Amino acid sequence: MSKWHRMKQKLIECIPNFSEGRRLEVVEAIVNAIQDVVGVLVLNYSSDPDHNRSVVTFVGTPEAVSEAAFEAIRTASKLIDLDEHQGTHPRLGATDVVPFVPLSGATMDDCVALAQQLGKRVGDELSIPVYLYEEAATRPDRRLLEQVRLGQYETLKSSIATDPERSPDYGPLKLGKAGATIIGARHPLVAFNVYLTTDDIKVAQKIARVIRASSGGFPYVKALGMLVDGRAQVSMNFTNTSETPLAPVIESIRREAAQEGVAIHHSELIGLISNSVLVDVASAYLQLEAFSSEQILEYKLSRVLGENDNHFLE
Amino acid sequence: MSKWHRMKQKLIECIPNFSEGRRLEVVEAIVNAIQDVVGVLVLNYSSDPDHNRSVVTFVGTPEAVSEAAFEAIRTASKLIDLDEHQGTHPRLGATDVVPFVPLSGATMDDCVALAQQLGKRVGDELSIPVYLYEEAATRPDRRLLEQVRLGQYETLKSSIATDPERSPDYGPLKLGKAGATIIGARHPLVAFNVYLTTDDIKVAQKIARVIRASSGGFPYVKALGMLVDGRAQVSMNFTNTSETPLAPVIESIRREAAQEGVAIHHSELIGLISNSVLVDVASAYLQLEAFSSEQILEYKLSRVLGENDNHFLE
Repeated sequence: MSKWHRMKQKLIECIPNFSEGRRLEVVEAIVNAIQDVVGVLVLNYSSDPDHNRSVVTFVGTPEAVSEAAFEAIRTASKLIDLDEHQGTHPRLGATDVVPFVPLSGATMDDCVALAQQLGKRVGDELSIPVYLYEEAATRPDRRLLEQVRLGQYETLKSSIATDPERSPDYGPLKLGKAGATIIGARHPLVAFNVYLTTDDIKVAQKIARVIRASSGGFPYVKALGMLVDGRAQVSMNFTNTSETPLAPVIESIRREAAQEGVAIHHSELIGLISNSVLVDVASAYLQLEAFSSEQILEYKLSRVLGENDNHFLE
Repeated sequence: MSKWHRMKQKLIECIPNFSEGRRLEVVEAIVNAIQDVVGVLVLNYSSDPDHNRSVVTFVGTPEAVSEAAFEAIRTASKLIDLDEHQGTHPRLGATDVVPFVPLSGATMDDCVALAQQLGKRVGDELSIPVYLYEEAATRPDRRLLEQVRLGQYETLKSSIATDPERSPDYGPLKLGKAGATIIGARHPLVAFNVYLTTDDIKVAQKIARVIRASSGGFPYVKALGMLVDGRAQVSMNFTNTSETPLAPVIESIRREAAQEGVAIHHSELIGLISNSVLVDVASAYLQLEAFSSEQILEYKLSRVLGENDNHFLE
């Protein structure tokens, strides 16, 4: 059976954000720095000129992903000058945020460890201050990205040396032109929008208030009511689909919409989603009892293959 | 990127049924004959003493699966004597039915070709009459397995030589103690049961009549109303989930049940299911528009990996 190969390795996803969305040659240099590391694969990247910001999604083994993130941070620090940077999106540094997300075989602890290692290395070798956030946060007030980024680069420039509250987790008490970088670990995020059979934004806003965590709704759900393409839209982020899966939230939207005399017209998924999140939706809708992922042919197959051989990344 | 491996090979599933469910040493000999072929993997097997029948599920590359099926048929023909066989399940031969099912990368045409090749080889080399069925059938009246098996081994013994309607597609016009074997190609089958919040079997029977193809319901759906564990159960087989996916049938059961004043209590999946069938359920429930399997992280990943390397089964 030695001819069968399988992905059994721990896999990590990394989605760094860089403060450059206009000079595409700079974005490409950063993407190349990531791509050149053996053991990682860039899945996609996109740039927004208004935000003046780019996002890269890549995956790989823990060591390779950490190495690639380091090379990206180094490249960005040479090519982006925060004193020159303007854009609508808040930011602290050339490489602004670096989240690690556990995929197959990996745990949140793996990602926290990666964030710590990378943070130390960026602080030591590149002299860039690093703040750890979300699951990797060292203080409760640094869990939320928005809070770490308060005041942005311009304010942090002076406060980093004087305000102990702003002391970085790694690196110097002083900002260079590359600013500071926020590194952390988080669950996969699902960006999901539901369009309603109405153009009344108030209906979407009302539903958003019912379902989102901040106003007493479902934990780990962020939601806004918007008007998109002439339809009221409930725009959502699910930040922890293990704790709050999609199905009950959709069920709740359907119920609330019916009370307003409208229905779901269609929905859309932005970006990528883990297969298991969709399987959970199917399982909830079907009211499956005693269902195991072992009953999914592809899972079963990869397990049986894995028992016979483990040649991945030999 | 040459270190990344991926499953890109055509994969076929084969689920042969053997007329032995009591002498486990015989079943094991058959399973071993399959397992010993390089390039196939046995996912599971089970035996039923009342039916006096065993089912083996294995997967592999087309050539390997065909070779393993041949070895299984040969082994069964040596160890099982139909003149001695008794059981509640109808059968024609020691190896009774051999369906090939296309998995990732493979098509129904691949499976039809496999059925023909194997049929010819079994007829020529083992002198066992072979009937092709379902997608591999050479005549419309041989599509249905039940029809090919009419009268069973005992009747076929005499009719095979005298009745032109019973002439096999391959092999001699004469049955040995191994009987005849039915070989074919079919879509993956999903066995799915819905339990209702009632012990009234009539409700399940009524719903079964509404949804099943044979009484004018959904194509490719077989359904029966039963009483299981004190609950009315709608027991279903989906024989072509590309044409009739699960979601609309479940929706219909829910509606019909509500009209009877009952609801779905829970459901259960028997055996294995393709991941894509579950993704289709999730997509239907979420009313996803413009959804692509490229948005499933694991798919995207395997595609990106595949573009870089194709070392599977080198």
